Amino acid sequence: METDNLSAVLHSQGDLRLEQRPVPEPGPNEVLLQMHSVGICGSDVHYWQHGRIGDYVVTKPMVLGHEASGRVVKVGSAVEHLKVGDRVAVEPGVPREMDEFFKSGRYNLSPTIFFCATPPDDGNLCRYYKHSANFCYKLPENVTFEEGALIEPLSVGIHACRRAGVALGSTMLICGAGNKPLFLFLCSAVTEQYLFPERLAMAKDLGADFPLLVKRGNGPQDLAKNVEGMLGAQPHITIECTGVESSIQTAIYATRPGGVVVLVGLGSEMATVPLLNAAVREVDIRGVFRYCNTWPMAIAMLASGKVNVKPLVTHRFPLEQAVQAFETTRQGQGVKVMLKCDRNDQNP
Amino acid sequence: METDNLSAVLHSQGDLRLEQRPVPEPGPNEVLLQMHSVGICGSDVHYWQHGRIGDYVVTKPMVLGHEASGRVVKVGSAVEHLKVGDRVAVEPGVPREMDEFFKSGRYNLSPTIFFCATPPDDGNLCRYYKHSANFCYKLPENVTFEEGALIEPLSVGIHACRRAGVALGSTMLICGAGNKPLFLFLCSAVTEQYLFPERLAMAKDLGADFPLLVKRGNGPQDLAKNVEGMLGAQPHITIECTGVESSIQTAIYATRPGGVVVLVGLGSEMATVPLLNAAVREVDIRGVFRYCNTWPMAIAMLASGKVNVKPLVTHRFPLEQAVQAFETTRQGQGVKVMLKCDRNDQNP
Amino acid sequence: METDNLSAVLHSQGDLRLEQRPVPEPGPNEVLLQMHSVGICGSDVHYWQHGRIGDYVVTKPMVLGHEASGRVVKVGSAVEHLKVGDRVAVEPGVPREMDEFFKSGRYNLSPTIFFCATPPDDGNLCRYYKHSANFCYKLPENVTFEEGALIEPLSVGIHACRRAGVALGSTMLICGAGNKPLFLFLCSAVTEQYLFPERLAMAKDLGADFPLLVKRGNGPQDLAKNVEGMLGAQPHITIECTGVESSIQTAIYATRPGGVVVLVGLGSEMATVPLLNAAVREVDIRGVFRYCNTWPMAIAMLASGKVNVKPLVTHRFPLEQAVQAFETTRQGQGVKVMLKCDRNDQNP
Amino acid sequence: METDNLSAVLHSQGDLRLEQRPVPEPGPNEVLLQMHSVGICGSDVHYWQHGRIGDYVVTKPMVLGHEASGRVVKVGSAVEHLKVGDRVAVEPGVPREMDEFFKSGRYNLSPTIFFCATPPDDGNLCRYYKHSANFCYKLPENVTFEEGALIEPLSVGIHACRRAGVALGSTMLICGAGNKPLFLFLCSAVTEQYLFPERLAMAKDLGADFPLLVKRGNGPQDLAKNVEGMLGAQPHITIECTGVESSIQTAIYATRPGGVVVLVGLGSEMATVPLLNAAVREVDIRGVFRYCNTWPMAIAMLASGKVNVKPLVTHRFPLEQAVQAFETTRQGQGVKVMLKCDRNDQNP
Repeated sequence: METDNLSAVLHSQGDLRLEQRPVPEPGPNEVLLQMHSVGICGSDVHYWQHGRIGDYVVTKPMVLGHEASGRVVKVGSAVEHLKVGDRVAVEPGVPREMDEFFKSGRYNLSPTIFFCATPPDDGNLCRYYKHSANFCYKLPENVTFEEGALIEPLSVGIHACRRAGVALGSTMLICGAGNKPLFLFLCSAVTEQYLFPERLAMAKDLGADFPLLVKRGNGPQDLAKNVEGMLGAQPHITIECTGVESSIQTAIYATRPGGVVVLVGLGSEMATVPLLNAAVREVDIRGVFRYCNTWPMAIAMLASGKVNVKPLVTHRFPLEQAVQAFETTRQGQGVKVMLKCDRNDQNP
Repeated sequence: METDNLSAVLHSQGDLRLEQRPVPEPGPNEVLLQMHSVGICGSDVHYWQHGRIGDYVVTKPMVLGHEASGRVVKVGSAVEHLKVGDRVAVEPGVPREMDEFFKSGRYNLSPTIFFCATPPDDGNLCRYYKHSANFCYKLPENVTFEEGALIEPLSVGIHACRRAGVALGSTMLICGAGNKPLFLFLCSAVTEQYLFPERLAMAKDLGADFPLLVKRGNGPQDLAKNVEGMLGAQPHITIECTGVESSIQTAIYATRPGGVVVLVGLGSEMATVPLLNAAVREVDIRGVFRYCNTWPMAIAMLASGKVNVKPLVTHRFPLEQAVQAFETTRQGQGVKVMLKCDRNDQNP
Repeated sequence: METDNLSAVLHSQGDLRLEQRPVPEPGPNEVLLQMHSVGICGSDVHYWQHGRIGDYVVTKPMVLGHEASGRVVKVGSAVEHLKVGDRVAVEPGVPREMDEFFKSGRYNLSPTIFFCATPPDDGNLCRYYKHSANFCYKLPENVTFEEGALIEPLSVGIHACRRAGVALGSTMLICGAGNKPLFLFLCSAVTEQYLFPERLAMAKDLGADFPLLVKRGNGPQDLAKNVEGMLGAQPHITIECTGVESSIQTAIYATRPGGVVVLVGLGSEMATVPLLNAAVREVDIRGVFRYCNTWPMAIAMLASGKVNVKPLVTHRFPLEQAVQAFETTRQGQGVKVMLKCDRNDQNP
Repeated sequence: METDNLSAVLHSQGDLRLEQRPVPEPGPNEVLLQMHSVGICGSDVHYWQHGRIGDYVVTKPMVLGHEASGRVVKVGSAVEHLKVGDRVAVEPGVPREMDEFFKSGRYNLSPTIFFCATPPDDGNLCRYYKHSANFCYKLPENVTFEEGALIEPLSVGIHACRRAGVALGSTMLICGAGNKPLFLFLCSAVTEQYLFPERLAMAKDLGADFPLLVKRGNGPQDLAKNVEGMLGAQPHITIECTGVESSIQTAIYATRPGGVVVLVGLGSEMATVPLLNAAVREVDIRGVFRYCNTWPMAIAMLASGKVNVKPLVTHRFPLEQAVQAFETTRQGQGVKVMLKCDRNDQNP
């Protein structure tokens, strides 16, 4: 039996260590996974740098990582849909209770949900990890482990698009061309704004028809007018990914009457926004919290070949170099940094 | 032919006059109505007192009134579903264009819509008025003219409930027990808050299970906790009717994850609100602009006898005393002041 | 510790016995219930009379009963929302797997669901029964045990109304005035048809505005015309509760363009129906399978006092007389026969 | 002023003539169009061959054609969004009344709708044609006239997909690879069945991942099993395009619980189908009648270049050879036959 379970453990703010942990034993409804690829998320870095995100505080050592895929090496007694050897993508949130949110199809809102690398729940940046079998999804042969790991950030985009009610022919404005929005572009996109011209160029490569560079001093209402001018009409949907107050204001002004603004970016607790303008034009404002029911769809999208996320992986490190990988992410280099947890297979 | 068309005409801020206007001639798709009952709305009083509401400015004389019912006295050549003698309720908004909003069932958002007593469009506080036959709805025998006139404010409540997605078993918090919310109580209600205890008492009479008196100094988060305590759980839906910033804040904090806040009250252009709290709990924020497709439902509700709006009419004046009636409304006396436009029939 | 667990066990077709079973021990997420009131459903009688329903065959002894309420007498170690002494209503279907149906809020469609008194799963017509705590719902003080037991048949009506998209002002035709539809009338109703005039009278008492007696020889299209004549317009929604082919045909012809036919009644496998008529008028046809997410709503409805199901209980028997109670139901006497499982409390 | 208005007029069954008609004068809300490209639809041929479709009977001479695009040559006095020279696609259905269907966004169901080339309304297979300006949609420069004309059949696919609730990641079975379904494949597709192998090949070219050739003797339940085997799971959505009873049966059996069958194909009035199977698995059955609100979306799809309908035009004839073009269509040659109505511009 394998005993090496090197794990990337955050002990406290700034104190990320690679250390051995016992290989866990799966329960009857669980599987044991040999981890293969785990992407580093901004939230992993944030916990490392600040020891907390909002009310979630690291008070005891916690394994990081929640963008993951691996191979099944042991199967719980009650598991029927998976077998040893299956390659799977891991959905990091697993409801602990069959509460009203789970029963009605919105388990992401369940207050007692287990979630990888959200304190106090351990993540899967390690060699061996056990997980609810119902939240491990078998990958088709033509989908790589790294694509499997990228389903997590892709899910943010899918969930945002669903919350927005994106349909055939919807016109969409994306505010902010950073890491999260990139995945939105994969779903559909029309235009975008932000202060970093190089991100804008990448957005255009990924499918944005009308990139718009926002300059300091551009007022929200002026920007909204610019967007309307470029598109020929106000967009049906605006996905706000920056969390910046002025950008939320632009999002509201820019959206067509009867349309939807989706808030993906997280800003400060209070925001001053033109609610009256939104209200009398019946522009709905909807937030997103993680995602639910996205893995099967994401796998279908990847398997069909219609979406190509592979170029997003710009850096790879073996698990042993996790600290260096985190430092690379912290410096904002590249797009997605991937950690390779299987010593014998470091392929994509 | 009748030539007396006494009309309540607002010439400019503060200058409301009763004067004769020609009896109009209906077009092919219109009907001429002998007006019977017209309620006074807060917006009528606001135009009278301030000469404007936001961007809508009274720049030429305008007939007031848009909560109305009357009797068909002439029928346009192309009208088939109405005949002389029919008693009808008047929907005041009539789309002028078959634009994208009308085609998709949200004609209230059509920017070129005709709307009674919104500058520059004349209202129907007069003896004779012509209107699109498709926006006149025949009243069943057991629905009175005054009930017909009350369909307009009732429609605000119906539309808000629809926008909220109110369903069997929804729990609902109403913030504000003024004139508008009264009609909401008719639809469904659970609790409410405000500074005026007498309004609260009326709200309770109308069906609110848990009235909550808000005191100066109550913080939004504390109030939200109080509401949860009273109801045993956070409400699915909150209808905010005050437009006051602190009340909008309460509405957001109080609503259950996955729930909806509907903004009915109109406040100032910008509002500072806990958007982040709403976003991460996926509490949707939706405004309402007037209403659409509500008259048939309202008539069905009234005809079934399941809703009783009659007690809401607390004052009646003949059309000749319109100025006195407006003054009564301005002073906040009673609930609904009704003007009686038919000299020969001043019954409810 | 209590050892009397008298249970109504169906051994095979026609062989219903009262016999002792061990008192079960609840698992960590379960509660042990002392059963109080259990209604007899048509399906219980059908299993007794025929030993099967469709593909569900009684191949080993099975406890009957699934319309139930009781009192918590033991609480599993992981249960937090219930405590000993709580009075609860029992939702009989409990998903065994977190499959795609459960995750998306339609757990009633989960193929591996546990369901009381559907072979091979035992029901709760007994003294002591253990159940998933998440599917036991605490009853407020003003809701009786019998009302709690009636939530199960009420749920069929709620689920059918939800599937139909019933909203404020919807007009509805119910086809069939038997046992199931009675619960539909509680939700909303407009008219109904069937061969039994006495059922029609009861339907009218329960709220049907327009009862329509169907005579032999009435063709589906003629009946549809009659319904339109009575209502003044075609109904938005038709709930078909008979499963009879001619009645399904009537349901389709009678429904307004853009409306919905919901199939509640179960008929033969194949049915010959005017699909073309439904298709070109965009009348949707939707079935129902049991229910999901209905208990909280039903409890809210009962607690509010707006729905009164108490008169539906026309017969009561102590558990010891279960066979006599089944015989009473088989003969079609009364509406709902209730078995009282608690020797010390046989109140409603 | 132009006086040549050569028109393809169907006088009665089998009697299609090219004859001169007066150039019409547009009303205030209309535009006069110089027609450019008009596709021949199966319904045009059906009227020509049989003089009727169901209850729609040709009782007086009627201009054929309803898949059309042209250029604005005169603008009604009240028209603001179009000007002379604009290239437009024509939506052939124009509501005559603001009835409940139009007001609620389903104007295709309005019983009094005007519809090109449905008796007694004239179509637009002619040189000059006037139409409601609100149902003429300006084409962007990068969309050709022929693409504009193809929006009509594309709209059938868009409307079917909307009625089905097609979303990101939906798996879809198309039954029938004829003319209509081809457009469905453009929207999304997974597999298909029918007796004509050459159509199947084209379906595969257009994007169907799993073509399935149905042989005589294949039972509906066996075919459903085959589909599940090929896809790895039952499809969420089945679009039935044949109208054949056995294919409707297959569609129901093949669809996943909680899924949707959309009926696009028109068969005989009565069909014998496994309604019980659909009902207990909550597989919804929904028809389509033409389309509504599809032109703006279709134009966005074509302008984006993501959909390529150009290869579907396999034959072109000048308007003068309309009878020959109809004969070509009747013989089932090619896919789409296009008539060119502008003598000076016969380009695509």
